[in-house]
Amino acid sequence: MSLKEKTRGATGNASFTAQARAHQERLESQIPISLRLPVSVLDNLPLDVTSIPESCGLLTPAELAITELDATAVCEKIAKGELTAEETVVAFGKRAAIAHQVTACLTDYFLDEGIAQAKELDAYFKREGKVIGPLHGLPISIKDHIPVRGRWGSGGFLSNVELSAEDCDMTRILRSLGAVFYVKTNQPQSIMHLESQSFYGRTLNPHNSNLTSGGSSGGEAALLAMKGSCMGVGSDGGGSIRGPCSNCGLYGIRPTSKTMPMNNYIWYQDGQDGILASTGPMCRSARDMRFFLNAVFGARPSLLDPNLIPVPLSNPDLSQRKLRVGIMMHDGVVMPHPPMLRALELVKAKLQAAPNIEVVDYIPFDHDQGYSLTREMYYEDNGDTLRRLLAEGGEDILPLTEWVISPPHTKGHNAVEMWELHDKRDKYRRSYSDYWQVYGLDVLVCPPFPGTANRHDTARYWGYTAIWNILDYPGVVFPTGLKADPSIDITRDGVKPMSQADEYNQALYDPEIFTGAPICLQVIARRFNDGLALAAQEIIERIIKT
Amino acid sequence: MSLKEKTRGATGNASFTAQARAHQERLESQIPISLRLPVSVLDNLPLDVTSIPESCGLLTPAELAITELDATAVCEKIAKGELTAEETVVAFGKRAAIAHQVTACLTDYFLDEGIAQAKELDAYFKREGKVIGPLHGLPISIKDHIPVRGRWGSGGFLSNVELSAEDCDMTRILRSLGAVFYVKTNQPQSIMHLESQSFYGRTLNPHNSNLTSGGSSGGEAALLAMKGSCMGVGSDGGGSIRGPCSNCGLYGIRPTSKTMPMNNYIWYQDGQDGILASTGPMCRSARDMRFFLNAVFGARPSLLDPNLIPVPLSNPDLSQRKLRVGIMMHDGVVMPHPPMLRALELVKAKLQAAPNIEVVDYIPFDHDQGYSLTREMYYEDNGDTLRRLLAEGGEDILPLTEWVISPPHTKGHNAVEMWELHDKRDKYRRSYSDYWQVYGLDVLVCPPFPGTANRHDTARYWGYTAIWNILDYPGVVFPTGLKADPSIDITRDGVKPMSQADEYNQALYDPEIFTGAPICLQVIARRFNDGLALAAQEIIERIIKT
Repeated sequence: MSLKEKTRGATGNASFTAQARAHQERLESQIPISLRLPVSVLDNLPLDVTSIPESCGLLTPAELAITELDATAVCEKIAKGELTAEETVVAFGKRAAIAHQVTACLTDYFLDEGIAQAKELDAYFKREGKVIGPLHGLPISIKDHIPVRGRWGSGGFLSNVELSAEDCDMTRILRSLGAVFYVKTNQPQSIMHLESQSFYGRTLNPHNSNLTSGGSSGGEAALLAMKGSCMGVGSDGGGSIRGPCSNCGLYGIRPTSKTMPMNNYIWYQDGQDGILASTGPMCRSARDMRFFLNAVFGARPSLLDPNLIPVPLSNPDLSQRKLRVGIMMHDGVVMPHPPMLRALELVKAKLQAAPNIEVVDYIPFDHDQGYSLTREMYYEDNGDTLRRLLAEGGEDILPLTEWVISPPHTKGHNAVEMWELHDKRDKYRRSYSDYWQVYGLDVLVCPPFPGTANRHDTARYWGYTAIWNILDYPGVVFPTGLKADPSIDITRDGVKPMSQADEYNQALYDPEIFTGAPICLQVIARRFNDGLALAAQEIIERIIKT
Repeated sequence: MSLKEKTRGATGNASFTAQARAHQERLESQIPISLRLPVSVLDNLPLDVTSIPESCGLLTPAELAITELDATAVCEKIAKGELTAEETVVAFGKRAAIAHQVTACLTDYFLDEGIAQAKELDAYFKREGKVIGPLHGLPISIKDHIPVRGRWGSGGFLSNVELSAEDCDMTRILRSLGAVFYVKTNQPQSIMHLESQSFYGRTLNPHNSNLTSGGSSGGEAALLAMKGSCMGVGSDGGGSIRGPCSNCGLYGIRPTSKTMPMNNYIWYQDGQDGILASTGPMCRSARDMRFFLNAVFGARPSLLDPNLIPVPLSNPDLSQRKLRVGIMMHDGVVMPHPPMLRALELVKAKLQAAPNIEVVDYIPFDHDQGYSLTREMYYEDNGDTLRRLLAEGGEDILPLTEWVISPPHTKGHNAVEMWELHDKRDKYRRSYSDYWQVYGLDVLVCPPFPGTANRHDTARYWGYTAIWNILDYPGVVFPTGLKADPSIDITRDGVKPMSQADEYNQALYDPEIFTGAPICLQVIARRFNDGLALAAQEIIERIIKT
């Protein structure tokens, strides 16, 4: 299949096609001619395109070196005067242009604005002898539905595209802390797939273009994996940060909801509060997650947004006590694919051998019920609003959109039915909390997805991430360093499916297809224990990588 | 009007009447014969019955002295061995029995259980030489809808009466901290009046039995004002702690929602989350509010209830800076009665003269819209559930119930309409927060009610308290020490009403009728600034009382 076919976006009627084409052409034209890859390269891409930025010759060695840095290092170097903001954003901007051409990860490209911002910051640094804030000069990529002043944004479909008049709280805060904006990134129609196909196109997984980069923050994930960014902002109402991070081998956290600002993020069901989304960093090092969260908390976002909760990020000292870690091999609904099970077994063995860790086998508490309630709360209006908005744009409903707004989980609700649903949610949360208390866990290690990245259009099961959304437990995803390997991750035959979803998922497995896909894990802590989840993740990663 | 007529409760069909009678008789029989007031006293009660406990001769001087203490003092004395838990609960229990006979404030009376609990605590203290927890031996009165193990409870109407099998989180925590339970207190049908008339009867204001004790925690307020309790637990979804405290001259705080445990409180619309209720202390000293909140926070309720937010109570040092205090004379919708305006003028003048206070005239931000949204969110099902439940119990709808579930504010909603309503709420909150930021206030002083306690069945306007529920700003009510005085609080004629609600409220005023009613004020701080509200209230009270 050609690159053009692989990256094809949503379809629709003539009006839709014309408008979608206009946006695609606008985006194409934003990529400078000097940064365009030759047709000979584009026509002969390997499945794994992560080495293209180095091999294409369009970036200097200095630029390549800058793009290897994580966000903490970038900020340290700029603060010491070892790097300028301008050369930093140029390096990431150039690499982002390459990344987009091979993965279709962007929706808006405005390096010129980023350079202008960076020049002002450099001038400030020169004049004042200090940085303007903790993110001084850091290029940050932004998911499409997060408004950036003067830039394009949408909810993943054409009828709600906007040229944003103002920054939202998040981008206003990041800008005030010194961040530089230069790209926005792709997401799926409706922002509700673990895949990223919109009217802009379909984002590919840089490690293997036959696989999805995940969703809904899949543009971010592909861009970060290509090192066209070192810090991205995603959002997560069912796995939209953790799924793509998992699929692309990255770090990301879905913080406890209402701790990070997401006011004015573009959404088509404002006021829906059964399931609360959250927003947070996607990045390439563990420390960058904490770095981002501390910077944003430091700006006291709850003074701006009265819906936010001022619980600061803790940094617990875990050196003086044993960490009690649960291991959940599967959720009782869908059995993870062999590469994921292999990673879990390895982690379990390594943790069991570690003196400062107490390992507990964790049997989950009715995740099927929790996930079913979650799905029912996504579209309490039977999906009518979304269907209407797509129809208004002349946009065809993509298969994964249709799937998420279909029975049995999706149906209409009146007030009493919504109260009943939310009451079931609250009772489920309570039962889960009581159950967790009995285990007395600090954190839980579990899959972030029932396997590595899926083939396109097949990422239907969100249970491994969405369950933590209904519970509002913070979740950190990180790369184990392992990759799917057909020589060891062989198909397990004759295993009786635990559910219909399991049957579907098992049928998707084929060792050859997932070759080289990164394997990530998820660390979960109780609500508001984001700092504990981060601290534990670092300890666990250190143990499994030694 | 006779006492019996004044305290008459809800009516209904024959089945209702029989069952309500049975509960009333059960309650009557629970009051020991030795504590019954003579008919000659009951037939000749003054309007102000607060002196009856002293004059009736049923309590010893020692018992009367104990009931003059606040909760902090009670706990200090018990912890020092100067008082036993048993003699404490006996004193308050006896006084509560008197209070009930003249105000109809109780729904369940179980002093025997309280004494048994107290004896165990005394034995523990003797054996261990220390208290079991910070509330060791403190008698706490409990609003009827808050479950206490083995005791009666309800949502204010007959069809949901229960004999509670278990403590709820709040009473379990209080019990574990050493609290002693001995009474439960009256509330209105539906728990949604600023009045307290249920199938048990109608609670009277101890300061003037022609006035309401307020609601929905009106039984608590009457009991506390009679000193039959020094610490009560109420709940507040529109003013249900602050209204009754204001009407009866008490201290009370509605904390920021989801900071205090209220899981399993009896309610008939579980899962309704447009407007969140909160729960907190009602008491007779400023310091007791903080004492209660710190004790409960100390038990880490968020480990029990995953819906709770672990933001601890701050204790800001305000001695080193000026406190910026807004004064809101009226909310632009309903003009307070003359006694309330007099108190506000006095407070303003005293604060202006204080060196450490900066006084700002505060013009409110569209309270009419905020209150209208609040009312619409109370019964998003058109009140159908409540009507059905009342009909199931054969119970007539009381006028104030009918009023709160009637158009134009009450109507049915589907999912999309509920989202839209909740979105309007969120936008209102945001606009209000932005507006408050411009004023830069620490706290706001405002009326807790558009006057002193109302005559029965007329407390229709909740705007002065409910507005802070939609905003979720903590509110502290405290007595100014002033009382309504017909010689100075004369009717202001010829004032054009600001609204229909204002016209209704103005027509209610008659200087003679409110004679002697206590005048309270409310201190408001931003969300999660409960500690600031408490600290500021103490400073403001000190200034106005010197």
